[in-house]
Amino acid sequence: MTTTTPATMAAIGTAARAAARTLALAAPAAKADALRAAAAAIRDGAAVILAANARDLEAARAAGRPGSFIDRLTLTPARIEAMAAGVEAVAALPDPVGATTATWTRPNGLAISRVRVPLGVIGMIFESRPNVTADAGALCLKSGNAVILRAGSESMNSAAAIHRCLQAGLAAAELPKAAIQLVPTGDRQAVGLMLSGLDGAIDVIIPRGGRSLVERVQKEARVPVFAHLEGIVHVYVDKAADLEMAKRLVVNAKLRRTGVCGAAEGLLVDRAVADTFLKPLIGSLIEAGCEVRGDSASVAADARAKPATDADWGHEFLDAIIAARVVDGLDGAMAHIARYGSQHTDCIVTDDAATAERFLREVDSAIVLHNASTQFADGGEFGMGAEIGIATGRFHARGPVGVEQLTTFKYQVRGAGQVRPV
Amino acid sequence: MTTTTPATMAAIGTAARAAARTLALAAPAAKADALRAAAAAIRDGAAVILAANARDLEAARAAGRPGSFIDRLTLTPARIEAMAAGVEAVAALPDPVGATTATWTRPNGLAISRVRVPLGVIGMIFESRPNVTADAGALCLKSGNAVILRAGSESMNSAAAIHRCLQAGLAAAELPKAAIQLVPTGDRQAVGLMLSGLDGAIDVIIPRGGRSLVERVQKEARVPVFAHLEGIVHVYVDKAADLEMAKRLVVNAKLRRTGVCGAAEGLLVDRAVADTFLKPLIGSLIEAGCEVRGDSASVAADARAKPATDADWGHEFLDAIIAARVVDGLDGAMAHIARYGSQHTDCIVTDDAATAERFLREVDSAIVLHNASTQFADGGEFGMGAEIGIATGRFHARGPVGVEQLTTFKYQVRGAGQVRPV
Repeated sequence: MTTTTPATMAAIGTAARAAARTLALAAPAAKADALRAAAAAIRDGAAVILAANARDLEAARAAGRPGSFIDRLTLTPARIEAMAAGVEAVAALPDPVGATTATWTRPNGLAISRVRVPLGVIGMIFESRPNVTADAGALCLKSGNAVILRAGSESMNSAAAIHRCLQAGLAAAELPKAAIQLVPTGDRQAVGLMLSGLDGAIDVIIPRGGRSLVERVQKEARVPVFAHLEGIVHVYVDKAADLEMAKRLVVNAKLRRTGVCGAAEGLLVDRAVADTFLKPLIGSLIEAGCEVRGDSASVAADARAKPATDADWGHEFLDAIIAARVVDGLDGAMAHIARYGSQHTDCIVTDDAATAERFLREVDSAIVLHNASTQFADGGEFGMGAEIGIATGRFHARGPVGVEQLTTFKYQVRGAGQVRPV
Repeated sequence: MTTTTPATMAAIGTAARAAARTLALAAPAAKADALRAAAAAIRDGAAVILAANARDLEAARAAGRPGSFIDRLTLTPARIEAMAAGVEAVAALPDPVGATTATWTRPNGLAISRVRVPLGVIGMIFESRPNVTADAGALCLKSGNAVILRAGSESMNSAAAIHRCLQAGLAAAELPKAAIQLVPTGDRQAVGLMLSGLDGAIDVIIPRGGRSLVERVQKEARVPVFAHLEGIVHVYVDKAADLEMAKRLVVNAKLRRTGVCGAAEGLLVDRAVADTFLKPLIGSLIEAGCEVRGDSASVAADARAKPATDADWGHEFLDAIIAARVVDGLDGAMAHIARYGSQHTDCIVTDDAATAERFLREVDSAIVLHNASTQFADGGEFGMGAEIGIATGRFHARGPVGVEQLTTFKYQVRGAGQVRPV
């Protein structure tokens, strides 16, 4: 495999920084035009993209990659159309740059405004999903940021074909080519260089991929990272829950898609209603195709449940498996979540408003839900239009990261000659 | 000098994390009560604090510390009263925790709120100014954060005396003692341990001190840092400026206090008016006691100016010295700022609204001012009540860091049983 040299990466960083300065001041219409032109180029280039993807798929099959990997890598006409439509949807979002988010006037007459500005240069490191090329490219461009995309070596042909369509969009709107760059190889050395920040050229790293990638990024990065390591998501069914609602929510939270970070991994049932709730809740999951690993009460309620081991609590299954147990009411549930959760997304099912409010206030997760499926943990579902990822950090980007979260701000102060007294 | 062992620091971290959980849910009145009681204890303990400070001062003088250091270290009855009043001012601020900063409802009926929550545990590393103990302790408590204070060894007696007053305040309000902890020694090993994050116990580090401290923190910290390395602050006097206003602003921006990060370090004068503006602007500075290091035009305009060297551009003098030069209008000024500035604070003086708006939009600094002194770069002057520092990072805290900037947020989602469609 060829590698990308430090000199090449430094040149990419320098070009990105220069492009970022232009992009920060680009007219909203130019960015939207570029995205619409890119979407058209993706549609027009569907056959070329599919041919490139076929080469990636052939290599992946020859390398004996598992079916889940092949599925993430595979593009179809429908997936390409969805990608183009996604880019158009980002084009149609309100432009976040330049928006004034607060204004106030001081007693001395100074008028202060807080105004959104782009972050700068974003380093996006991803693995097998080639559509991230288009999604991340579109979100970064919309938010006025230059982006350096580093695709995995297995999806390089597909990513390069999509990248050419984004380049066509930039050219159509006369925006700098370096606004969206693709690292030419998928080697690990390029990742290491990006994590070093390319001598100040990268402002933030966003990894999209498996746990080992995110772990490496969080460990090695010398620049800020927007990421979550894992989504240990819980649903707590309170004694005041509507049982039918709880069954529906738990099954959706666990099984709608099992591989997403908002998928439930733990079911907590209030001891006060365990006798009546445990059997139907566990039965619903099992009958929907889920393996339940439960505490002794859960196994006693439904013999099809398997005994849980200590390793099952706080485990991210990302599969049709859930860990289930009885807890001592709201406080027991919150103690379990504090111990085993990952501060990502947690949910309470209850008809008691005071209990719900305590849960929403006291559980220290980026997203806390009352009577709604945890699978709503998603920028699109939040109304952000699209997301580049979900972050569990405590700074800046927390929860879904959409175009607004890809900006920072500055203060503009307008005066009439005021000087500061001693 | 005694050192603080890793075991002691780990215990401090664990206690801080536990206190942070309590503080995050503490009633606003309890936090305000604790601060008012702490202010009373500072006033009541003034003699004890002064005696402790006298011991620090004696040691500093014996060690031959310079006058500027002695001044930063010195407490007086007036400074102690100001410290107590500052703590009361923080007590009187609106409580930021729990404030809802955005709400919206999705088409499916989900009601989403973004609600402020504390950051968690803050590690505050400072040097000689003992009043930081009270300022930082008060701001962290108000914002619901636990804080670990590490004072320099030279101010340890003073810091410990002030810390005891804060402890009295916490006790009066029945808040955990570990909400505000003081590292018992001022050695560098404790700093290193804090920069490692104390095994996840510290969420953010805030350094307050000289350039060497901030450099070390930015280089070694494994957790996020709110800081600025330097304030290379510029004032650009445009051809459309009111000359009298420009003179007043430049003199205030440079000389009101020369040691603060918002003090101007560079004067840029539009070539179109250099013939008429340069002489009075430079003359005003020199007559107010400032050394001017200028380009050839500046030296020609006033023979008292000294020729600038390349090292003077982008230099943080923190003294009554300014670097002055002629630039080619707005674009020349912005190019100079992009090359030499530190993205902290920059100012334009002009009566041309379009020119001012371009400067405010295009200069990439945390604070950009029009017709106002750069010495307004201050959380108190921004109306934030008080600040723990000024940050130039692009994330989260940028510009003055007050109680709101010491919080993060979570999303609360209220539903009625919604599940996510496939």
